[in-house]
Amino acid sequence: MDSLHVLVTGQSAEEIAGMVESPPVPLDVRVVAHPEDADLAWADCFVGFTWPAGATERVSWIHGTGLGLDGLLRAPRPGLVTRTVGDLPEQLGRYVLAAILAEHENHDRFAAAQSDRAWDPVAAGPWPARAVVLGTGDGAQGIAEVLARNGIEATGVSRSGRAAPHFARTLPWSEVEAALSPAPEILVNALPLTPETRRLVDARVLDRLDRAVFVNIGRGPSVDEDALRSVLDDGGVAAAWLDVHSVEPLPAGHWSWSHPRVRITPHVAALTRSQDVAADLLAALRARESGDRPPTAVDPDSVGWGP
Amino acid sequence: MDSLHVLVTGQSAEEIAGMVESPPVPLDVRVVAHPEDADLAWADCFVGFTWPAGATERVSWIHGTGLGLDGLLRAPRPGLVTRTVGDLPEQLGRYVLAAILAEHENHDRFAAAQSDRAWDPVAAGPWPARAVVLGTGDGAQGIAEVLARNGIEATGVSRSGRAAPHFARTLPWSEVEAALSPAPEILVNALPLTPETRRLVDARVLDRLDRAVFVNIGRGPSVDEDALRSVLDDGGVAAAWLDVHSVEPLPAGHWSWSHPRVRITPHVAALTRSQDVAADLLAALRARESGDRPPTAVDPDSVGWGP
Repeated sequence: MDSLHVLVTGQSAEEIAGMVESPPVPLDVRVVAHPEDADLAWADCFVGFTWPAGATERVSWIHGTGLGLDGLLRAPRPGLVTRTVGDLPEQLGRYVLAAILAEHENHDRFAAAQSDRAWDPVAAGPWPARAVVLGTGDGAQGIAEVLARNGIEATGVSRSGRAAPHFARTLPWSEVEAALSPAPEILVNALPLTPETRRLVDARVLDRLDRAVFVNIGRGPSVDEDALRSVLDDGGVAAAWLDVHSVEPLPAGHWSWSHPRVRITPHVAALTRSQDVAADLLAALRARESGDRPPTAVDPDSVGWGP
Repeated sequence: MDSLHVLVTGQSAEEIAGMVESPPVPLDVRVVAHPEDADLAWADCFVGFTWPAGATERVSWIHGTGLGLDGLLRAPRPGLVTRTVGDLPEQLGRYVLAAILAEHENHDRFAAAQSDRAWDPVAAGPWPARAVVLGTGDGAQGIAEVLARNGIEATGVSRSGRAAPHFARTLPWSEVEAALSPAPEILVNALPLTPETRRLVDARVLDRLDRAVFVNIGRGPSVDEDALRSVLDDGGVAAAWLDVHSVEPLPAGHWSWSHPRVRITPHVAALTRSQDVAADLLAALRARESGDRPPTAVDPDSVGWGP
């Protein structure tokens, strides 16, 4: 029986490969730290976050090492796309909840008062009741779950509007205005980056906000930065927590670093653990072997591959 | 039928009195903004946060406007003590969760990097699993509930060690060392301030910590400040969020303002809403009228009144 050629790429490739134990089919595993060094013509299954420049005729399966697959869209449309979920949805939920709580509890204001040794008691406002989450995939569901657990009801907006776990309701993108009316206290961008979602979060969406907390844990290029800057300036967004950016690392000259209403984090809201990549890859191998759909398989269309 | 003389004191006295609607017994209500102006000889029921200097032979019931009753302990031991609970436990839970998340998500580090326009990705550590909460009263229960909801199991330590809702386990103070072994990631002080709890949280407790987050939402004087400063300096406490202080407002010269591991907030973790004072007072009136124990009644012994 021929073994499946699995090419694991990235800084943690060696560690991930070492964790792929007792595979259900014979594997021939190679690791390369830099995707550019990958021998695509050799591989059946490509594991990584970024697709190298270069053509291939052999790779039929891509296993992403994160939730976001936009770094892999340069690849020819593969037969099978799986990804790593692990505890990434929970991590995203915590990032979003931390941002909401920091704003609610006036952390910045009290930190400034502390550096002035100033006793400045100010009451927290009411706890927010409603969030709108753009996207309803695994990551978005993790966010909705953490919010629900803490008394915040989430409305999800996705291409299809199909129901999704942990959301109080879901609407299709064609009804995004309805989802944002009345204006929610929280807006979270958790959209995948695809040709369709590029700058999708624009003035049509952002102008509906009223002193909201905006959190971007999706991707930078899905947000229209000029529209965001404008609602930050006019108070439609009271605070923006941005973990993902139009360019990463964010250039030192970018306006968002110094905007008083923006909090920047360096794409750390959810970081993949090697054991989760290996576990989800093994689960996919086992499902594939028994003819089932792998649990973390995604529809190539919905994450941005063209036909 | 004689009416019950209710004396409502404090800045919100007028507002609170206006919310005491349809009482089950005739009331004669007076309001004074400053407790010192109160005519104690007139009152049957004293509503407030602080007991004025002055003797009384008439007040038989004290209704506290917060969870903490230490400001009222100068009063002669009353026949009945009730207090305001409202949503204060939930507010305390949010304060504690916000502190834990801010530390977990490295908010301070990223804020510092942002002011340097520096891209400094650092991964969050594992989510904490265990908290010890000193105190198991209503406030402590609110904290345990919020933590449990977010995957953190709370052990409560109280005088009696009696079981309390939302705690995974409770231990008596005589076993505080056992509660702190292995060292929990989180320690919360939610003790009432009584003659017994003054400086109770001392080196015996604090020296057992190992890179913990310490949160004080109880009272400042129940913590031995020298012991706290020492574990902050040696890393036993990695971060201390202090909402209550040995003296309030905290004097500008106090060391805690500038300690790099201390976050100061000005006694705002849980602020009483007037409607909650009125609602809990009315509930106590109704219970009293039908011969039941008021839902927010507390044992005068356990909150610090001598015999």
